[in-house]
Amino acid sequence: MLIECVPNVSEGRRPEIVAAIADAIRGVAGVRLLDCSSDASHNRSVFTFAGDANGVEQAVLAMFERAVADIDLRTHRGEHPRMGAVDVVPFVPIEGVTMAECVLLAKKVGASVADRFRVPVYLYEEASSDPARRNLEDIRRGQFEMLAVKMATAGWTPDFGPAAPHPSAGASVVGARMPLISYNINLATNRLDVAKKVAAAIRQSSGGYRFVKAMGITLEGRGIVQVSMNLTNYEKTPIFRVFEAVKREAGRYGVAVLESEIVGLVPSAALTSSAEFYLQIEGFNKDQVLENKLRTINSQG
Amino acid sequence: MLIECVPNVSEGRRPEIVAAIADAIRGVAGVRLLDCSSDASHNRSVFTFAGDANGVEQAVLAMFERAVADIDLRTHRGEHPRMGAVDVVPFVPIEGVTMAECVLLAKKVGASVADRFRVPVYLYEEASSDPARRNLEDIRRGQFEMLAVKMATAGWTPDFGPAAPHPSAGASVVGARMPLISYNINLATNRLDVAKKVAAAIRQSSGGYRFVKAMGITLEGRGIVQVSMNLTNYEKTPIFRVFEAVKREAGRYGVAVLESEIVGLVPSAALTSSAEFYLQIEGFNKDQVLENKLRTINSQG
Repeated sequence: MLIECVPNVSEGRRPEIVAAIADAIRGVAGVRLLDCSSDASHNRSVFTFAGDANGVEQAVLAMFERAVADIDLRTHRGEHPRMGAVDVVPFVPIEGVTMAECVLLAKKVGASVADRFRVPVYLYEEASSDPARRNLEDIRRGQFEMLAVKMATAGWTPDFGPAAPHPSAGASVVGARMPLISYNINLATNRLDVAKKVAAAIRQSSGGYRFVKAMGITLEGRGIVQVSMNLTNYEKTPIFRVFEAVKREAGRYGVAVLESEIVGLVPSAALTSSAEFYLQIEGFNKDQVLENKLRTINSQG
Repeated sequence: MLIECVPNVSEGRRPEIVAAIADAIRGVAGVRLLDCSSDASHNRSVFTFAGDANGVEQAVLAMFERAVADIDLRTHRGEHPRMGAVDVVPFVPIEGVTMAECVLLAKKVGASVADRFRVPVYLYEEASSDPARRNLEDIRRGQFEMLAVKMATAGWTPDFGPAAPHPSAGASVVGARMPLISYNINLATNRLDVAKKVAAAIRQSSGGYRFVKAMGITLEGRGIVQVSMNLTNYEKTPIFRVFEAVKREAGRYGVAVLESEIVGLVPSAALTSSAEFYLQIEGFNKDQVLENKLRTINSQG
């Protein structure tokens, strides 16, 4: 079983604090820290780690212990919106685990965090208890500075923990979601209007594919434009379908796709499903991928 | 480091002997037996296992110990050509290991087998010491029954071990090769001549792609034909290139590709390279595949 966890922590300027949190995560048996990136202007760090349910739960608790001790939002400044020392904790199903199990894990961890650290916890995305509290942006609106007022308002009682912010650590958002894929397609043109029109055609917000966020931007150094995307559920809106739609929409303006790029990590299944599509492979089973077969046998043995 | 080993053993009718060999392989720490399939008419079994260099070496020696004790080629009958109790042992680089390292491993294991069991060993494929002894079919021609005569002929001194066959276990062929991918493309027609022409156009033997073996066959039950292939080096002749060539050649006769299929196991990289091609992904690094990244970190930690 493999669950990924990608917590965002409100510290990106004091490397010793970030390193202490990374060490706390690494110290948990069976958990692997895959990445840690800090942004000083955001004053925020993103940790990526993976393990089984028990492992990632212990790593989140170890991370909270350090973050609550070392981070004080009353003096925190940064460009990125935030409401907690540990701002947001998503659990992501990768292999041998269902979304329903990740939702249960989010609730269990949320309850533990509230109980142990007296930090109020809101559940979000797939773990959300209320449609109005599904999106992170809605929960975080007003940020730490308005949190005490917001929590006293109808509809904003947290899912777990005290009904008022933790004095220094604010409140945290915990939940479950599919892996995000950061996927960009470069067009063989310098016409920004074409990139913007293509982005509008394919993104959910303006009527496009459900799990696509997209915008058109200029790549200054290269004299070309890019459709810059986040794919929020690669099982339901797969990469190949998005690629084909972008190619078709750009073709309408006589513009070709130059290349695409995947930024950061991508689950193997998001790529093999594209191979299945283009190669028209029927009856394929993911256990036919040698590495998957090996993993299956290892986890049984 | 991950090396696959796919030995073919000359026993497919006595399940207790096959099971004993499988147990010998499973008994080696760090080695995983992925598959074992026996064919009674061939009187032959194919084992697939994987591990690091030391693990697969120990597993091969354990397998030889059982096979040499339990199999006697003087009384062996079966449809498939064979010359040894353990007929052929290929080592296949999967991850974190080069072909050159698999060649060295084949030589080391070949020497150990000859030394310990007094079985002559011929090196083949990438490990071959002589172009005339590169192909398995050339080495095995004449089979067990003609082996003593063949070994006394100029040019057929084995790479390791005695210059005459082992009385009951014959001789073995050990080497290194790329993973084989068994890949078939079904055409939307019942015209066998089209499948045969397409197969001839794409296979190495008649001028096609270097690492493709292909033939056209009829799928009796379905009223369609198939281009049935073995891809012997998916890095140098990738799946997508073969698929596109078949599609184009069939189109010449007004015939469409109905579907394709992968039989058995396929390395993840063979599929992700197809995704890279069709999605035009630039600058992709295999460590961006989440599962690869995890494996890399695991093997370091």
